[in-house]
Amino acid sequence: MKSKILHEVAGQRTVALIFETGDKVMSTLTEFATKSGLSGSHFTAIGAFQVATLGYFDWNVKDYKHLPVNEQLEVVALIGDVAAGPNEKPKVHAHVVLSKSDGTALAGHLLEATVRPTLELILTESPVHLRRVHDPVSGLALIRP
Amino acid sequence: MKSKILHEVAGQRTVALIFETGDKVMSTLTEFATKSGLSGSHFTAIGAFQVATLGYFDWNVKDYKHLPVNEQLEVVALIGDVAAGPNEKPKVHAHVVLSKSDGTALAGHLLEATVRPTLELILTESPVHLRRVHDPVSGLALIRP
Amino acid sequence: MKSKILHEVAGQRTVALIFETGDKVMSTLTEFATKSGLSGSHFTAIGAFQVATLGYFDWNVKDYKHLPVNEQLEVVALIGDVAAGPNEKPKVHAHVVLSKSDGTALAGHLLEATVRPTLELILTESPVHLRRVHDPVSGLALIRP
Repeated sequence: MKSKILHEVAGQRTVALIFETGDKVMSTLTEFATKSGLSGSHFTAIGAFQVATLGYFDWNVKDYKHLPVNEQLEVVALIGDVAAGPNEKPKVHAHVVLSKSDGTALAGHLLEATVRPTLELILTESPVHLRRVHDPVSGLALIRP
Repeated sequence: MKSKILHEVAGQRTVALIFETGDKVMSTLTEFATKSGLSGSHFTAIGAFQVATLGYFDWNVKDYKHLPVNEQLEVVALIGDVAAGPNEKPKVHAHVVLSKSDGTALAGHLLEATVRPTLELILTESPVHLRRVHDPVSGLALIRP
Repeated sequence: MKSKILHEVAGQRTVALIFETGDKVMSTLTEFATKSGLSGSHFTAIGAFQVATLGYFDWNVKDYKHLPVNEQLEVVALIGDVAAGPNEKPKVHAHVVLSKSDGTALAGHLLEATVRPTLELILTESPVHLRRVHDPVSGLALIRP
């Protein structure tokens, strides 16, 4: 993954993150967020995956069901944000719509995915921090502004 | 729903809107837009719904078909804008991709939805107004810049 | 298609592009990008299409499979970017999620589509250029920052 700053004004920065074949999206993005100290970012991306694992939050079980998809997929809409987690480390939260060879769509919480051949992600970091706090009802760490 | 200003420069403001369990998205967002006097905004969001009603504009009937979905759904891609309606009041327009427990996607015009447990929405308001005007062909109020 | 500048600061410009019935999205957007000299832009859009052709990049064949859809469709999530192509001309890259009358989703690379009755697109052009370079492995022109 390579990054390039596109714009910077009054503490807000926009960056292009271009992932390459073999890059793991969530771990690479989390590593970038940690190195860059991100805590109030949002992003969108398009591209393609070689393989992906989606998640669906089962409200009865209060945990994510894992949905692995083992085929070349178009990344049609990847949307997400970065906030400080309960442990103070940057936490990436991303959802994604994927498409298969017949144009049908799969969608869900993005657990992990491997890029092939590219993912074009535009991220905007704001000067104001967002923080996630443990929510006892869902068991999730939710943003509390 | 709680909001937090993330950035402000030269009349453009970026705000995080964090919805909580039970919040009705369209009515809450419309109320926020009215109170804040929004008329040139765009936004994206991810999160989850307890229940939602999608719409599909039937071109033959010139009206929205209602598609209620009564199950816990991932909000995978919520995209929309706010412009001044023909009555001068802020009009929220949003489309959404939802996913079910097996990863299949449902999508459409967002008529209304109830959040559970969160919706993380990033909205950018510009200093320039957008206006909707009644379109006699479709019967819809379309943006005329 | 009509455009309106929403915001401009430190070399970054945000523009609303409002497409009308009959507008071809990709050719109209490419024409706008060429006239405006865009080379580092990203955008999102919602609206509706009368007809569309999606693409799926078949990794084995290294080419796009064409998936024509001949019915009125909600444009639920259109995400894309503009970068300078290998020939120096602006190259628009867009992916889209569409929905049918029963709320099912189709998704993929956007080859072309005809608007009906509107497409509301918000584009941000940065002062920094992005460039596409021919990738011998995929045969595609990928952004190399």
